[in-house]
Amino acid sequence: MTKKPLILVTNDDGIMAPGIRALVEVMKEFGEVAIIAPDKPQSGMGHAITINSTLRISKTGFYGVRHEYTCSGTPVDCVKFAVNKILHRKPDLCVSGINHGSNASISVIYSGTMSAAVECAIEQIPSVGFSLCNHSIDADFSASQAIVRTVVSTLLVNQIPLWSCLNVNIPPLHIDEIKGIRICRQSKANWIEELEERKDPSGNNYYWLTGRFQNFEEGNKETDSWALDKGYVSVVPVQFDMTAHAAIPILSKWNFDLKK
Amino acid sequence: MTKKPLILVTNDDGIMAPGIRALVEVMKEFGEVAIIAPDKPQSGMGHAITINSTLRISKTGFYGVRHEYTCSGTPVDCVKFAVNKILHRKPDLCVSGINHGSNASISVIYSGTMSAAVECAIEQIPSVGFSLCNHSIDADFSASQAIVRTVVSTLLVNQIPLWSCLNVNIPPLHIDEIKGIRICRQSKANWIEELEERKDPSGNNYYWLTGRFQNFEEGNKETDSWALDKGYVSVVPVQFDMTAHAAIPILSKWNFDLKK
Repeated sequence: MTKKPLILVTNDDGIMAPGIRALVEVMKEFGEVAIIAPDKPQSGMGHAITINSTLRISKTGFYGVRHEYTCSGTPVDCVKFAVNKILHRKPDLCVSGINHGSNASISVIYSGTMSAAVECAIEQIPSVGFSLCNHSIDADFSASQAIVRTVVSTLLVNQIPLWSCLNVNIPPLHIDEIKGIRICRQSKANWIEELEERKDPSGNNYYWLTGRFQNFEEGNKETDSWALDKGYVSVVPVQFDMTAHAAIPILSKWNFDLKK
Repeated sequence: MTKKPLILVTNDDGIMAPGIRALVEVMKEFGEVAIIAPDKPQSGMGHAITINSTLRISKTGFYGVRHEYTCSGTPVDCVKFAVNKILHRKPDLCVSGINHGSNASISVIYSGTMSAAVECAIEQIPSVGFSLCNHSIDADFSASQAIVRTVVSTLLVNQIPLWSCLNVNIPPLHIDEIKGIRICRQSKANWIEELEERKDPSGNNYYWLTGRFQNFEEGNKETDSWALDKGYVSVVPVQFDMTAHAAIPILSKWNFDLKK
């Protein structure tokens, strides 16, 4: 890219989160920044879009850039607004994050941060989601900023393969403790749910969804979980074709007896 | 399966939708039915989970089965409740739907119906999402019921490959007009968004997200979009590994210069 790139910044923790602030700071070094981010936390929203209710956007002025809006919807809604209503063109790059908490392994599918990046991949916009493996609101993003700088300068001289985006997870370490950057695949894992039961003042039950991460591929060096455990930044290329291609020949042998 | 299977039924249109009613009717022929479905429409919720607010469940009695609950959350939340709080074991099968409207092609990623099925795949529960390509609340589900019967009896004598589930889309035709069942892959497509702008009584703008489906693989006989256009039921095996495996060797050649 020879002229200054137009860079869309979004996230799922909301426009005021320290993570997006850290990301905007770095992205200003690379091009013209446009921010369209949720007006409230949207963690765990996955690839949700708002179709049963209305959407609103508001111009804001926290970051001193020309295009800066909050959106009442999900991270994917933010991307749709940015492309179709605010920028009126596809940005040259989209970065999402920096998320407060890991989006490695199976968490990619629940992640609003990553779904914004995936939506960009669907729209053929180069995109990256960044996550720091530390949930704290007071997390130190200085190492993450160095990683963002490294990843973005690398992808600007290369090209993210078509129909994919990058899922970058950063271990909660000082930059000098980070061992390097590893290209990985998503580890096979799930969340063991605990629906924590409480009683409201009227005596009725309500629940908080919590969970414990269970990695089925402990010790597998190809995986993002391994890389993060060992102090590496994990970079996973992510796509949106949900077809289980290997299952097609198996299902093709099934005999469907159509009961008309 | 020799003993009566335990079948979880859920959807994204809410527990009172005609589509889930049609599905429950058929599933009672196959085993013990448990219903945990959203208390309101949850279309387009993708793989969202509820982590920033509380969840509630309510026992209901519309369908005359032992386990029958509404959940205040998303379709994925419903699956988590079913497995961890209500059934206290994995059901033998989960069916989601019948959705009012197509979930073929790229719509699979936005679909609450399919995300419930995908969540089951993550939990290694055999699962299928059914969708009728007709949005109308008055849609005729009689052909769909025959298709559900065919698909479920077929998969009970076979086995859905591990880590996958089925995305079954049904064209809006009379059963005699349906040409058959085709195993397909998801077609490459996107939605061209139109954010319809309106003014509220105070004169402020708000928006409705609408879109037009754009198929990049018109005429490709491997795809679900082609099958449905031609009057076939499409069956796509769906997985949840988001890794773009083919991109790994490409990214591995990039030179990340870690700026410490």
